[in-house]
Amino acid sequence: MTLAEQITEKINLKTKPQAALGRLEALALQIGLVQNSLNPQLRHPAILIFAADHGIAASGVSAYPSAVTVQMVRNFLEGGAAINVFCRQHGITLRVIDAGVNFDFEPHERLIPAKAGMGTRNFLHEEAMTDAQLQDCFKQSAVLVSQQAEKGCNIIGFGEMGIGNTSSASMLMSCLTGLPLAMCVGRGTGLDDEQLKHKLNILTQAKENHSAPANVFDALKCFGGFEIAQMCAGMLQAYKHDMIIMVDGFIASVAYLCAVSINPSLHLNSIFCHESDEQGHKNLLEYLNAKPLLNLSMRVGEGTGCAMAYPLIESAVRFLEEMASFESAGVSQIKERP
Amino acid sequence: MTLAEQITEKINLKTKPQAALGRLEALALQIGLVQNSLNPQLRHPAILIFAADHGIAASGVSAYPSAVTVQMVRNFLEGGAAINVFCRQHGITLRVIDAGVNFDFEPHERLIPAKAGMGTRNFLHEEAMTDAQLQDCFKQSAVLVSQQAEKGCNIIGFGEMGIGNTSSASMLMSCLTGLPLAMCVGRGTGLDDEQLKHKLNILTQAKENHSAPANVFDALKCFGGFEIAQMCAGMLQAYKHDMIIMVDGFIASVAYLCAVSINPSLHLNSIFCHESDEQGHKNLLEYLNAKPLLNLSMRVGEGTGCAMAYPLIESAVRFLEEMASFESAGVSQIKERP
Repeated sequence: MTLAEQITEKINLKTKPQAALGRLEALALQIGLVQNSLNPQLRHPAILIFAADHGIAASGVSAYPSAVTVQMVRNFLEGGAAINVFCRQHGITLRVIDAGVNFDFEPHERLIPAKAGMGTRNFLHEEAMTDAQLQDCFKQSAVLVSQQAEKGCNIIGFGEMGIGNTSSASMLMSCLTGLPLAMCVGRGTGLDDEQLKHKLNILTQAKENHSAPANVFDALKCFGGFEIAQMCAGMLQAYKHDMIIMVDGFIASVAYLCAVSINPSLHLNSIFCHESDEQGHKNLLEYLNAKPLLNLSMRVGEGTGCAMAYPLIESAVRFLEEMASFESAGVSQIKERP
Repeated sequence: MTLAEQITEKINLKTKPQAALGRLEALALQIGLVQNSLNPQLRHPAILIFAADHGIAASGVSAYPSAVTVQMVRNFLEGGAAINVFCRQHGITLRVIDAGVNFDFEPHERLIPAKAGMGTRNFLHEEAMTDAQLQDCFKQSAVLVSQQAEKGCNIIGFGEMGIGNTSSASMLMSCLTGLPLAMCVGRGTGLDDEQLKHKLNILTQAKENHSAPANVFDALKCFGGFEIAQMCAGMLQAYKHDMIIMVDGFIASVAYLCAVSINPSLHLNSIFCHESDEQGHKNLLEYLNAKPLLNLSMRVGEGTGCAMAYPLIESAVRFLEEMASFESAGVSQIKERP
């Protein structure tokens, strides 16, 4: 028997109607295969929030001022943001990566410095980052994901913070999927109809100002945020360490889109955690043929979808480990069909 | 300001885009209103599994033999079932109610005896229970829910186990909603196409054999299971104690349907936890205009949907309690619209 067959048999002998645990059964199989084990375990779950500033924010594409990126990083460090609450609730380690915020932070135990610059340039006028910055993003993020693996973490979520980053994500999504910008653009942190129209206009103009990127690296360089590039690289590194990868909402899914176009096997390790209320996410999930675990009309980012979905993933591993079998519990199996 | 306005303001001042926590925000408001508090708390969460046998099982409507009810109750007591695993995971107290299993159990710390009989009669031929048995169900269940309230429990889930009970639930659903039986009947623990056809035939015949019930009590007496009657009564009692009521899958939702037709205010306290894969559930949820928190294609019963949804409900209370406000965290609010 293959491992997949063994895990499936183990699931089918648990005291429940066949297939009655639905998506938890698929998760148990997936995690067993990633860990190459009939008894998979989740260890030291971690969520990394990648934060960076965006030049495009100067073009009025966000409902919040750029200063909020710094302020929210401080909030993450002080423990007051939504993601802090949910990580505390579920015993998930939280680290904040300064991928390129336009501010020099004091050292903090929860902060990992990995600055690729003081924010990207405005991609309306020029490429968002240099080749060297993009390479720096890939290098630094790989190192810090490996550090989590060395600490025993085998399930990792990727979150983000960065005023302006839905614009960056929309551009990348449109470039890599071929979908029109209007299907990739949404209200972000809360634009009204007029502001949304302005955002779409700015992004349409930005697309016209650049030649079509030749590949995912060119796309990231042209339109990327530092945090998106680092999330992409981090996911690729997590795959190398056989980690389970928790994919959060719109921006994280765009980082996944970039990463899976570099390594198509990435999907084997990845779990889509929630469907965001950000408009482009639904279209992206359809494109990726991904069905997230949760749909709670959330649109916070920060990795909050990963944190909310974590207990469901844990349940999958636990039922496989802890439930009795028909035989061990002395429960009759399904009646023979005549 | 009303309490609802105060809670909404508290939510809106948290460090996140407006409404960005989606359904968690609605939950926080709901729980605050139930507890009449700006600082709601969840205390001593409990799930009660009501188990009973069904006369209709003798007519071949289930994929499993009736003996499985007893066997699964033992499994609950020994800790090997899915619901045990998920309750352990989330620190939820689990109690098993013998509402009328056709077996005399030894005493067990997790078992609460509340037998209304040794299983119902077969409603294909006669009324499932007597008046006295129905009254007994209501009385005993109210007492044991009050006992949970006295222990400090303010959030309670209702699960069930009983071979044959999807048949009972389908009959009640059809009687109380007026929907045709075909929209209320499903595969239960795993009937194939032919067995499903047989089940629908049996239930159609049963409906013809009885005059239409005059009210919900008549319906419960005619087609009910002891566990469904006790769940219905338990929900009504939980409402009286201002408890949050977690509604599980198909059978629990039918119990809710009975209960809410007795006390329409019940919806204020109730949270629909998951959409079951059992076919009738989708139709019932539409009828009730209910949108459950989870859809994981599960169909276990036992209260498993409540246990899986519990951490989401807890997250709602926690963000309201623990998140920083814009002011306390020094985060800028949304830019003024010009």
